[in-house]
Parts: sequence; structure tokens; C-alpha cells
Amino acid sequence: MNTPLQNGLTIAFHGQNAANFREGFEALIAPSHRIVNLSDSLDQPGEQAAFESAEVIVGVKLTAAMPTPKKLRLYHAPAAGTDAIDVALLPSASALCNCFGHEAAIAEYVMAALLLRHVPLMQADADLRQQHWTYYAGRPTALRAELGTQTIGLLGYGHIAKTVAMRAKAFGMRVHVANRSPVASPDVDLAFMLDDLSAFMASADAIVVTLPLAPSTQGLVGQAALAAMRPEAVLINVGRGPVVDEEALYKALSARQIGGAIIDTWYQYPTPQQPDCAPSRFDFAALANVVMTPHMSGWTRGTVQRRQQNIADNIARLVAGQPLLNMLKAPWA
Amino acid sequence: MNTPLQNGLTIAFHGQNAANFREGFEALIAPSHRIVNLSDSLDQPGEQAAFESAEVIVGVKLTAAMPTPKKLRLYHAPAAGTDAIDVALLPSASALCNCFGHEAAIAEYVMAALLLRHVPLMQADADLRQQHWTYYAGRPTALRAELGTQTIGLLGYGHIAKTVAMRAKAFGMRVHVANRSPVASPDVDLAFMLDDLSAFMASADAIVVTLPLAPSTQGLVGQAALAAMRPEAVLINVGRGPVVDEEALYKALSARQIGGAIIDTWYQYPTPQQPDCAPSRFDFAALANVVMTPHMSGWTRGTVQRRQQNIADNIARLVAGQPLLNMLKAPWA
Repeated sequence: MNTPLQNGLTIAFHGQNAANFREGFEALIAPSHRIVNLSDSLDQPGEQAAFESAEVIVGVKLTAAMPTPKKLRLYHAPAAGTDAIDVALLPSASALCNCFGHEAAIAEYVMAALLLRHVPLMQADADLRQQHWTYYAGRPTALRAELGTQTIGLLGYGHIAKTVAMRAKAFGMRVHVANRSPVASPDVDLAFMLDDLSAFMASADAIVVTLPLAPSTQGLVGQAALAAMRPEAVLINVGRGPVVDEEALYKALSARQIGGAIIDTWYQYPTPQQPDCAPSRFDFAALANVVMTPHMSGWTRGTVQRRQQNIADNIARLVAGQPLLNMLKAPWA
Repeated sequence: MNTPLQNGLTIAFHGQNAANFREGFEALIAPSHRIVNLSDSLDQPGEQAAFESAEVIVGVKLTAAMPTPKKLRLYHAPAAGTDAIDVALLPSASALCNCFGHEAAIAEYVMAALLLRHVPLMQADADLRQQHWTYYAGRPTALRAELGTQTIGLLGYGHIAKTVAMRAKAFGMRVHVANRSPVASPDVDLAFMLDDLSAFMASADAIVVTLPLAPSTQGLVGQAALAAMRPEAVLINVGRGPVVDEEALYKALSARQIGGAIIDTWYQYPTPQQPDCAPSRFDFAALANVVMTPHMSGWTRGTVQRRQQNIADNIARLVAGQPLLNMLKAPWA
């Protein structure tokens, strides 16, 4: 990585997801680079060869069914998750990097979902349109609890959780964290270690799962952790679906053992063959105590712009022989 | 006010609104005080005499049709607005005080309403329940703007606006203010004077009206101010309805001249005779670009508790001959 590259690189944007980051990208990189746009299936004329000869690939999926990109120096995911990229297929000389830049977007999703549990905007609107003043101030039945008086529990304390913590603090919330390594921050009132999970789960009114998927996190929030939650508490998953055990979550919700869930990351995702699929083998759509959204929380123009800049910065670093940002696999490693 | 009172006071909670602040109140005051609960209409046996002899009244309405509270030392509204209290009817020796304590609640309402314009939780949920992944990350059509990239304009800079500003800043928003007196705060990026209203209205993506109703504020946001707003901008009124000109607002919304409105404070309110009334003589319920709520934004358990404490503190100050908090009329003034 310490040898600067002399010439412009061939940069391939592979597939529909990467295409979201393509517009305006040339303005962020040196003019000597060449950009090619490739389809997901690589079935157009010349696409297989272009993939094979790319020095940089921006994409989210690398499988054995695809050609081997022999000249690759950098595989860059325009996302945080790289679980569909088979690292074993990357040439030894290449690096693998991912992107964040979604934390402000996800924090807006989390705070919106939490606030909406406290401020009944939609019901109040529907009622007042019928001239019913159901939530009128002064009516004892209309009194609500403030989100600011509650405790938020952040499972994991990476980019997303830190950004949520800052906003939660501005509302006056108490912030608890459970993390693999110890946490000390002015935004955190109480930090637990991950092996003290039940105590953490019992300590908050809202639990936000922000962990990535890994062997150590898969199913981490299982039956025992859910059973430890306060009966009125809500679970929010913006990390990865399988960090929360699918069956245990469905059972806890259908038995109304917890207050509810706001689920953005799932167990089943659409494919080209099945664009309209259920997000789980369990019928979450039949539950009233769930807000279910289609893995959308981080998807904003701001996220796209920040990730474009991150990828462009890494290409400049690659050319200059400087250390890459957010590197998951180093070259020759 | 400098003469400490020797004996316990007779404290009357007058009407349904005041009754919300009655529960647990004895625990907040000295045991020598006596509390009486009076109905709005004062038509139960002894109520007229009790009203007449009260030394402290907690209530929201004083009219010439009611008995004169001759011994009154303190009329305390458990709310910010005192427009239904006829100050001319207060005995000269009495003070008039109001309460705030609603600012955290209103800020939650404002941020909830703003966030919900950016994060389409309800539509996403309805769609995913039908297995439609409309807002799935990676879909170019699902990209949203972040609230954090927007500018909020706070009309007035009192308790409510300051509390909103702090939360808006935590999301990264730019904060503009228009105020009668100059404003300097680390939470404010740009401050306008009220006579520069059009420039202020044109400078933000969301305008939040937080002004109280007074001759100088009635109709302040009229046709010209609304015409100065950005075409996509939203108006939020959590101050008082008539600060925004009723007809001009309706016309701006029905002509889609502005992006929308979130209206919590209105032009018509329910009465015992007409509990289900429309909130305006114009048909706001026919508009799709409005969220209409029934003057609910400040109505939380936290608000009630903070106001109870405020009223109890003022009773203790009255007894001790100390200056009262939030005094709108001083005794002998």
C-alpha cells in the first residue's frame, strides 16, 4: 500500500445499489480515473471483462459465480454491511473497505419512532378532522408521558449509538449503554458490559439494537434478554435482523410480553425473483404492537453524499499510498 | 408583599382545568393551608361563598359573572395563557401569576411533527405489511432529505423556542430566530428583529410560531409573511392561533403556496355547549397538507408536575413575603 499508483484507475460501479452513488462521482475524484457502470447480473456485452479488469469495484456483492477481479486493489462497499461480499474471493493485493455516514439518518429514524410513541399526532389529527378534541389539554385522559423522562438503552456503542445518544440527551433522556468494551462518555449515564445483558435490558424504557451481524452477535437478544425487558418497554432494531432471535421476538410481541417493537432490519429480504416478500417467516404484519419498516432508516441524500465522499477519499488515498479509511481487509492480509 | 402571612391560606381549585393540578397538591404545601375544590359553574351549595372568601385561586377564568374574591392574595393560572382572566376584576391586593413548565413537552411535539415529515414511518409500515418494500435502502426513489440538513425558524424566543432550539441543534439543524429584542445564544445561528419578518420567514424550511397572543402579535403572520415563506416550507403553530391570520393561512394552504402546516393552536375551541366544534370557520379538515391537533402539545404529566411545584412554590413565597415567580400583576399594582 505504500507504492503510489502512477496512472488513473479503472473504477467499476457494480449493480443497482452502487448506482445510487454514481451520480456526480467524477467531480469528487481525479480526472485521470475511468468509471464504468456494470449491471448486477454482468450479462451485458463486455461486462464480465470489465469486472475482471477493474482496479476498484464499488459494490455490495461478490460471489464465486462472478468473474475474478484479478487486478483489484480496492473493493469498496457503499454501505456498512459487507456480509454479501465473500472475502475469500478477493485477490490478496486488494483491500476491502466499507462506509458509514448513515448515523445521522438512523438517529432521525430512531428519535422519530420514539417520539411518535409519545406524541399521538396521527390519532389526534384523525380525531380533530371529525371535530373530536380527544387529546385537548386539560383533559385528564389526554395526559401523556414525556419521552424526555425515559431511559434509552443502546445495545452497542458505535457510530449509530453515539449519534442517537447525543440527540436523546438533548431531550433530557437518561442514556444506558451495553457494549463489548467499556464506555465512558458525557452522553452516557450508565454503561454495562455485554455479559451483563439482562441487567441492561431491564434498565431501560427503549432498547435500541445497533450491533452489526457477526457470530458473536447473532441471536444475542434471545428469549432471556427479551424476558428481562420492562413490560412497557419497546425494542428498536436498526442493527441487523438476526442479532435479535426471530422466533423469540415474534413470541414476545404476540404474547404482549413487551410494549412493542420498531423493526427496520429483518430476516428475509426481497430478491429480483421475489421483489414482494415477507420480511420474516413469522407473521409480524398481524401484530398491532409493531412498526415495521423496510430497512430504510439510513437511506438519505446526506448518507449518499457522505459515502460518495468517503469512497472518493479512499481512492485518493490508494493512489497516494496512504492508509485507507474503514478498512476491513488490508492488502496482502 | 413583604408582610409574611401568619396563618394557613384557603386555596380554591376552580374548575375542571385546575382540577388536573389538584391530585397530590397537599404534599407540596404546608399542612396549615386549606384546599377547596370548586366546579366551573360555582352552582353547588357553598361554592359562591368559597370562591368569594378564597385567598388563593388556581384557575383559568375570571369574569364579571363570578363572585368577587374579596380576600384574594394570589390568582394562579396553572397555564401560560391568562387571556380568559379579567385582570380588572382582581382585587388590588392580589397578584396574578402564570406557569410554564410545558416547554419540554411542546418541544417533543414540534420535533415529532418535523421528524415525521422526513421519516415516512406510517406509510412504510402500511406498505411493508403488504410486503411492499417501497422505502427500501438502495432504491433511488426512496431517498429522503435529512431534517438535520434543514433550517428551523423560531418566531419568538421564550421558554418554548429555547427548548426547541436546543433539540434542533442536537440534530444538526441551522437555527434562525425572529424576536422583539436581540438574541445571542450558541444555539442560534442567525437572529432577526420582528420588523424584518419577511426576511426571517424566507430564511427557513420550518417556521415555528411560539408567540403568545397580544395586540402586537395578533395576525402578525399574515398574507405577506406567508407569501415570503419558501414554497416547500412548513408552518408550525404552537403559540396561539390568532398570531397567524386565519384566512391568510387557510388560503396559503389550500392554494399550496407553502409546503404545509402543523397546527396545534386554533381559532375556535370547544365549549360545554358545543364540545365537538370545528377549530376554525375555514375547512382545514378538507386539506391534505395539514396536521391538525387539538391544542395538545404541552399536555404531559411532566408539565402538570412542574406546574404543581411552581404553584406550591409561589404559595410558600406568598406566605414568606418573598417575590413571586412569573408575576403578571403585582399586588397593589
